[in-house]
Amino acid sequence: MTVELLSVGTEILLGNIVNTNAAYLSERCAALGLSCYHQSVVGDNEERLEETLQTALSRSDIVILSGGLGPTKDDLTKEVAARVFGRELHEDVHVKESISAYFQKMKRTQITENNWKQALVPEDARVVENHNGTAPGLILEDREAGKTVILLPGPPDELKAMFEESIAPYLDELEPEGIYSKMVKLCGIGESKAETVITDLMEVQTNPTIAPYAKLGEVHLRITAKAESEEKAEALILPVLEELRRRFGDLIYTEEEKESLEDVIVRILKEKKFTLTTAESCTGGKLAGRIMNVAGASGVYNEGYITYSNEAKSRLLGVAAGTLEQYGAVSPQTAREMAEGAAKAAGADAALSVTGIAGPDGGTKEKPVGLVYIGCSVKGHTRVEEFRFSGNREKNRDYAVVRALTLLREELNQY
Amino acid sequence: MTVELLSVGTEILLGNIVNTNAAYLSERCAALGLSCYHQSVVGDNEERLEETLQTALSRSDIVILSGGLGPTKDDLTKEVAARVFGRELHEDVHVKESISAYFQKMKRTQITENNWKQALVPEDARVVENHNGTAPGLILEDREAGKTVILLPGPPDELKAMFEESIAPYLDELEPEGIYSKMVKLCGIGESKAETVITDLMEVQTNPTIAPYAKLGEVHLRITAKAESEEKAEALILPVLEELRRRFGDLIYTEEEKESLEDVIVRILKEKKFTLTTAESCTGGKLAGRIMNVAGASGVYNEGYITYSNEAKSRLLGVAAGTLEQYGAVSPQTAREMAEGAAKAAGADAALSVTGIAGPDGGTKEKPVGLVYIGCSVKGHTRVEEFRFSGNREKNRDYAVVRALTLLREELNQY
Repeated sequence: MTVELLSVGTEILLGNIVNTNAAYLSERCAALGLSCYHQSVVGDNEERLEETLQTALSRSDIVILSGGLGPTKDDLTKEVAARVFGRELHEDVHVKESISAYFQKMKRTQITENNWKQALVPEDARVVENHNGTAPGLILEDREAGKTVILLPGPPDELKAMFEESIAPYLDELEPEGIYSKMVKLCGIGESKAETVITDLMEVQTNPTIAPYAKLGEVHLRITAKAESEEKAEALILPVLEELRRRFGDLIYTEEEKESLEDVIVRILKEKKFTLTTAESCTGGKLAGRIMNVAGASGVYNEGYITYSNEAKSRLLGVAAGTLEQYGAVSPQTAREMAEGAAKAAGADAALSVTGIAGPDGGTKEKPVGLVYIGCSVKGHTRVEEFRFSGNREKNRDYAVVRALTLLREELNQY
Repeated sequence: MTVELLSVGTEILLGNIVNTNAAYLSERCAALGLSCYHQSVVGDNEERLEETLQTALSRSDIVILSGGLGPTKDDLTKEVAARVFGRELHEDVHVKESISAYFQKMKRTQITENNWKQALVPEDARVVENHNGTAPGLILEDREAGKTVILLPGPPDELKAMFEESIAPYLDELEPEGIYSKMVKLCGIGESKAETVITDLMEVQTNPTIAPYAKLGEVHLRITAKAESEEKAEALILPVLEELRRRFGDLIYTEEEKESLEDVIVRILKEKKFTLTTAESCTGGKLAGRIMNVAGASGVYNEGYITYSNEAKSRLLGVAAGTLEQYGAVSPQTAREMAEGAAKAAGADAALSVTGIAGPDGGTKEKPVGLVYIGCSVKGHTRVEEFRFSGNREKNRDYAVVRALTLLREELNQY
């Protein structure tokens, strides 16, 4: 079965808000085994909404509309959907009661006349209760044509609660065949290089398929299988997964959908009972900030240093004045002394250091913008790597952070 | 002129990523005076992409496609757009050189065969340079039909940089009727509160209009006027701008389109010849990382501390053991001592400290998740503020960073 998302709201077309509803509904529908090939956004305009809904119904089995169920005259999703399905609108007593009850609960006594617009329901529609607002959801089915329209309110909290409570169970019953997928995440390899490694697999793929996603400094591969049951899907996915493991080996940092690179780092540190510290120059706290994304990071990370000036590198980390003078702040020697000094100062088992020229200024011919040295010291053994990034200031700093985490993972895996 | 956005990528349909590109492009196009009535998303599927592009071209003057310009065989936006416009693809020598240069700069020696796919350019296309990646942007014009297709890479930083540098000026010339806009950025006030302050202005607005954009911890107000000349537009905008200044006063932190809150902070610090340091617990480097986004930050920021453990708070910042024992690490007292201790340790004129419970664990009834204390010490005078955020770990940390910057701006303006 195919589903299509149609978001209604001029505020999305103007860029006033980001369409997070679409991302949420997409992920949920994919998890329910529904194929989504199209998403659209239209404004609060009757004609264009009707046209877009007609197009959506012509190519998809289920259309989920979000937004435009409010009480104002701008809100016309319900009216348009009813017309497209040839249904009259009638006042629904239960909905009317729910609206009264909601207003009482919220201690808002003044129900304005236009609120009763929300009690109008197309004939033969299923009404879906809204516990977080006044606009009920609606399901319209045209059994003959095999088409379904689902109307959800626009506010994300109302939409999500209603979807989880009522729509997901409804959709789950509609879809007999499921889609199952498995994630493989790589670091330390570029997207095009990764794809070269699996071109032959991708060329012959039908079920399961492999889709590469380039993330900043990472590549994610999603293996997706269609099958009647999870067991059958797993049987289809397993040989592909094993082949990917054979080909990418240690470049795979996780096979867990929701595990990030920093999650893995913190997990490894915990397993080995190691503590970590950081000494950052050009990344200026971004590396530590990313590690601290992990809820359990406090168990392995006690302190870190941002050392922008040479004086701070010497005083806080003990980088030798001679090193800074002879090789400069952006040098493998300084990166090494920063990592080793940080480990010592924090009494940590592992330390990462970053020193480089993020740009846009400060580059020279010998040391251009984008030159970054990353030091990684684990249990007294230090490795320094040189990188030359070519992005803007922000990107150079973001790449440096991912490369530092990648390097640390490699080094930790030696222990 | 009408513009339509078409985002290409199965990862959007699967909900793997939120379509922030569409929100960014919508906002920018609206600011350029282009009317956008439709947005669509399709996956990496040749047939559906072609069909959707044809539909978009049938109803809009300009179609901006984003995504699908990568080197893999999934990426087929360019191929489809060329076919729709009846153009052959040719290898472009300059693009090829740019790709080689990019790889050299990135020190990635292995250019794989599929990278050269990105050097293929449709005939008579304008090539738009990409300084942050290998996929160039492309502009295809069908002058007879009056239709234009613009192809942009999917990674947001590449897309944004390219849009600002090349596409916005191009679109600006296409649109004969002038649209001029002025930005007013606020911090320290919520979106709905800000809207309440200007409801009366928004209700009567025709030319110019005021559009509020809610950003994380900030509200941006864009005043947009339609006029024959910039002078006439300015004359229309000025009274509205003055009214906003009257109503919001010091909450306006900048009227410059491209100036961020951290830019303003660094600018003020430079003007006053002040240096800044940071002492972070729950934000763990994110605050320093954001200040370091500013290219000139090295002039005002020498060092900073990430002090997660109590021991680090005492040793690095001199927070009294008694304070930690009596009031706890998450307390106004600790925030104060962290800020004052950091200023002293770094020999800085100003210091920001953050200590709180970002979640998801660690909350108690008295000190729930989301409780954050921010200390701001300037020239020996310290102010501490309590915040109660209600987001997830990431959101709470992000909000803490914005609130810290907002507080510092307020305090710096006293000097």
